Amino acid sequence: MPVRLSPPVASELLPVAGVRLGVTQAGIRKADRRDLTLIELSEGSRAAGVFTQNRFCAAPVQVCQAHLAAGSAIRALVINTGIANAGTGELGLANARATCEAVGAQLGVDARAVLPFSTGVILEHLPVDRLVAGLPAAQANLRADGWHEAAHGIMTTDTVAKATSRRIELGGKTVTVTGISKGAGMIKPNMATMLGFVATDAAVAQPLLQQLVREAADLSFNSITVDGDTSTNDSFILIATGAAGTPEIADESTADYAALRSAIIDVAVWLAQAIVRDGEGATKFMTIAVSGGANREECRKVGYAVAHSPLVKTAFFASDPNLGRILAAIGYAGVVDLDVDRLRVWLGDGASEVLVAEMGGRAASYQETEGARIMKADEITVRIDLARGPAQAVVWTCDFSYDYVKINADYRS
Amino acid sequence: MPVRLSPPVASELLPVAGVRLGVTQAGIRKADRRDLTLIELSEGSRAAGVFTQNRFCAAPVQVCQAHLAAGSAIRALVINTGIANAGTGELGLANARATCEAVGAQLGVDARAVLPFSTGVILEHLPVDRLVAGLPAAQANLRADGWHEAAHGIMTTDTVAKATSRRIELGGKTVTVTGISKGAGMIKPNMATMLGFVATDAAVAQPLLQQLVREAADLSFNSITVDGDTSTNDSFILIATGAAGTPEIADESTADYAALRSAIIDVAVWLAQAIVRDGEGATKFMTIAVSGGANREECRKVGYAVAHSPLVKTAFFASDPNLGRILAAIGYAGVVDLDVDRLRVWLGDGASEVLVAEMGGRAASYQETEGARIMKADEITVRIDLARGPAQAVVWTCDFSYDYVKINADYRS
Repeated sequence: MPVRLSPPVASELLPVAGVRLGVTQAGIRKADRRDLTLIELSEGSRAAGVFTQNRFCAAPVQVCQAHLAAGSAIRALVINTGIANAGTGELGLANARATCEAVGAQLGVDARAVLPFSTGVILEHLPVDRLVAGLPAAQANLRADGWHEAAHGIMTTDTVAKATSRRIELGGKTVTVTGISKGAGMIKPNMATMLGFVATDAAVAQPLLQQLVREAADLSFNSITVDGDTSTNDSFILIATGAAGTPEIADESTADYAALRSAIIDVAVWLAQAIVRDGEGATKFMTIAVSGGANREECRKVGYAVAHSPLVKTAFFASDPNLGRILAAIGYAGVVDLDVDRLRVWLGDGASEVLVAEMGGRAASYQETEGARIMKADEITVRIDLARGPAQAVVWTCDFSYDYVKINADYRS
Repeated sequence: MPVRLSPPVASELLPVAGVRLGVTQAGIRKADRRDLTLIELSEGSRAAGVFTQNRFCAAPVQVCQAHLAAGSAIRALVINTGIANAGTGELGLANARATCEAVGAQLGVDARAVLPFSTGVILEHLPVDRLVAGLPAAQANLRADGWHEAAHGIMTTDTVAKATSRRIELGGKTVTVTGISKGAGMIKPNMATMLGFVATDAAVAQPLLQQLVREAADLSFNSITVDGDTSTNDSFILIATGAAGTPEIADESTADYAALRSAIIDVAVWLAQAIVRDGEGATKFMTIAVSGGANREECRKVGYAVAHSPLVKTAFFASDPNLGRILAAIGYAGVVDLDVDRLRVWLGDGASEVLVAEMGGRAASYQETEGARIMKADEITVRIDLARGPAQAVVWTCDFSYDYVKINADYRS
């Protein structure tokens, strides 16, 4: 059951001028599932993306990277679920390219103007004929208010669709940012996430868009983990259609850029957290906030060590303030000269947070009843001050429950 | 239930001349448990150890390191369960030192001749008075054939005691190697393991003993993982009493050293594998054998990525040949220039092994029924050839079951 994550309300998802979305059932792997999503972008749109660093990166990821690197004007995205088209060799690449050809022919654009995405079972081949046969229905369903439907169309083991919108004013005109994401397992994005798509109708220069997609990924999808497994298909795409009619933003020092950047990062963080809240078997949402690091990288190391520890995750599942497991994870995180006598650890949030460890051990003031009270909540913050510098980082994760094992022992059956 | 691991038979554990072991119930944390073990070494014994690299290394680990570094002639080891004496600051160090003082006074040796070990709950203080009160009973129980009892005395969440012996001939005389270990969770030793003690009555020069303990740890305890959590208390100690009366071995090029080295590594590997076989909730024992690496470190990275992946571990629990999860883990292991089109992956052992992946995808010859057959076994080998060099490494691990979650959600209650 997801942790404080409600299904999106269709009427609250704001259309983005220049974007239309259509979904259909193509029977890619199983019948009666919305498994094919088409996203059409108006002429003049710009797109930038970041992708998985997994060496077994999927065929569609490789095709996306090639199309973006070639500087093609992107006009469509096509997303299938059921089959990941990863670990599929040359045939996999041919299938991803054939998908782009078919979408391009249908929409009257070049195949290189199409970005393909797949998610599902690894090592099986994409039934490209069934996918292509579904394209006319997906095209017929294209609607500006199709975000709600598309959020459902890209789901796999997700139990809740993930979508959100923000609206800001730029120079007296209204600009919209709307995004969708999917993912619940095999989640430890490295440079990107499972699948995340964020679009705005603001106009942004390509170099700035590229910078923004990396920055937004770093602060959102690259700061979450469910199980530590970096997927073969992680992709995060940021689209700027420019269809709102606002002037192109090309300077990062402007107030307009700051406002847009803030809205986009806000959407990306919401979507990334939604993946954790819907993490496989999740019953708790945990924030691991690390400060006082010599650099951001070591803060992330500590955050991920705590977030990945099966012992920490099962203790949170049990609402057990087993603090020793947190300290052990900090200790093995790989910060070689870490002084454990200086660091401090708190449980809980804001005014109600409790100091639990200092001077190499349990804080003298700590009462186990306080720890137990905080652990009962379904959202818990662990704050760690390394006391060795100015850097900080946050990692969001979920606990480890019986249902995680059940879901992943049953997934293919 | 442990995977193919039988309880040790007392009569099959061979005494090591110069070593006596005694166990008692000291009530360290709970009543009616054998929780205090004393190991007495004859004069002239040598000891060498390797310890956890966790920055929160426990107080007894720090005291062991200090005593060994000072070159003290080690005459006794004292091991308590229940409380790990880790994350306990200055008081923890004082308690570990007080333990050594008490043992030294009782046996008539210097406190620095005593090595202390603790295992159990982190962040709680050692009840040193109860420990000291138990020492006379432990001493009264000292016996040369006390290995079986000691293997039980050091258990925590272990379901089976771990002990084994080997006997070799050196220059016409019989030399014995016997060892015990404990551990089932918080197992991803880094330089050492939870607790492992191996003793021989051969005589070995100190520099060679130090070299051998590192080598044996590297090939045994440092090649296993249950949950990826490196403990605060990992310690592996190798003892050579010299009491067999064989000449001291000081030259690593001799046949005697080769024979002894082989027996010691054999015992260490058996003890390390026993920890995995008794891993918390384990139903399968998995060998991840990686070859063809440019160096040993990258082979270990790949082996551990596969061995730590919760998705791989739950698939093995389900006997599901979900090979994509293995490829994904290889892909994110951190070998940045890995060519996935060259590597190959096999499932199974020896003559019955099956090629499952090559050329970036599923092997053309692979039949899922073959994979399913192999996955039904309770011992499974995954062999990975990176095809980029001569290096190799092996990692042993277990699967991830409902019982893992149950054990760790319940541990403190």
